[in-house]
Amino acid sequence: MNEKDTVISMSVVRRLPRYYRFFCELRDSGVARISSRNLAERMGVTASQIRQDLNCFGEFGQQGYGYPVERLCEELRQILGFNTTHGTVLIGLGNLGRAVVNHMDFAGKGLPLVGIFDDAPALVGTQVNGITVRSTSELEAFCAEHQPSVAALCIPKEAAKQLSERLIAAGIQAFWNFSHYDIAVAHPEVVVENVHLGDSLMTLSYLLEHK
Amino acid sequence: MNEKDTVISMSVVRRLPRYYRFFCELRDSGVARISSRNLAERMGVTASQIRQDLNCFGEFGQQGYGYPVERLCEELRQILGFNTTHGTVLIGLGNLGRAVVNHMDFAGKGLPLVGIFDDAPALVGTQVNGITVRSTSELEAFCAEHQPSVAALCIPKEAAKQLSERLIAAGIQAFWNFSHYDIAVAHPEVVVENVHLGDSLMTLSYLLEHK
Repeated sequence: MNEKDTVISMSVVRRLPRYYRFFCELRDSGVARISSRNLAERMGVTASQIRQDLNCFGEFGQQGYGYPVERLCEELRQILGFNTTHGTVLIGLGNLGRAVVNHMDFAGKGLPLVGIFDDAPALVGTQVNGITVRSTSELEAFCAEHQPSVAALCIPKEAAKQLSERLIAAGIQAFWNFSHYDIAVAHPEVVVENVHLGDSLMTLSYLLEHK
Repeated sequence: MNEKDTVISMSVVRRLPRYYRFFCELRDSGVARISSRNLAERMGVTASQIRQDLNCFGEFGQQGYGYPVERLCEELRQILGFNTTHGTVLIGLGNLGRAVVNHMDFAGKGLPLVGIFDDAPALVGTQVNGITVRSTSELEAFCAEHQPSVAALCIPKEAAKQLSERLIAAGIQAFWNFSHYDIAVAHPEVVVENVHLGDSLMTLSYLLEHK
């Protein structure tokens, strides 16, 4: 698969999690095989797109027999990187940070949450999901000891520039960035997955306007 | 512009909010004109992509003179639909719903928040940002009276299927969907902008694995 990595477009990559979810749901409901046509109906996409997308990663289907569901779950798990473990820290335990900590399955995606940071005096020292909340003054010492690779930034834009610089200097290689600060412009070398809620709301407005 | 609407790809649409933000920041810092090359450096993209993207919507730049910043802000505002007003309801005032209510500029995007719904007895009847929290049993009556077009769904997947059906029956035309339930599969006629945090975390894992 590695030789193919460079040619896979971000559009295909962004569709992979949804394929993974659908194959896992099929497996959990006892389905052993599914045709691209049947899967296409369930997912609301075309069978040809499914075949094209999955073909980017290997030969998983068999003409006339469909996809083996269990195998696709395992292959997509591997492709999505869940079998590689990277420690993750979360910065900012406001409403958004709390929603992320409570609802996201970090460990199941190979990104176990190992540290939570927030500077609010009322929060420092408390426990959230078994993790002690620390002040950001401890960031560098914590990273030196625990070597996390990933940071989830649930902080305002104003704080994100300085904190992302410190985190990169401390060895962070990838950001789950809710902060609305464009980390990637200054740091093309790190992996950045942006969740820009403001941009998403604007996109909704566009789609409604041009319905 | 309308005759061009059908050919604009979602990739271009998803980049528009970022152009809007950059042009507004330039305007706010007193810049009157900017070349695509200079803008490209600030945004970390290519000048050719900027020209191609903006050309989808009209002739805004002038060879050798660059883009008029103030005009681009206004044009992008119009294109993004902020000048058309649609009432918006938010369903689910957990940590995520609260973060969305507190941090998102609904009114500035033409989507003023007119109602908030949550069934927790401790929340019903309280005020959040000047809006009274109502029980979802009041949804239909509220929609009949206030005619909102948009719903932000900050609820778990399990609750989203039934609530989205009720909202569509009550006249909702567009969803800002945080719920991880695929509304669009059963309802291709409504506008759906998904914020699927689980898929985003999986994409981050992929990007780190294939760095």
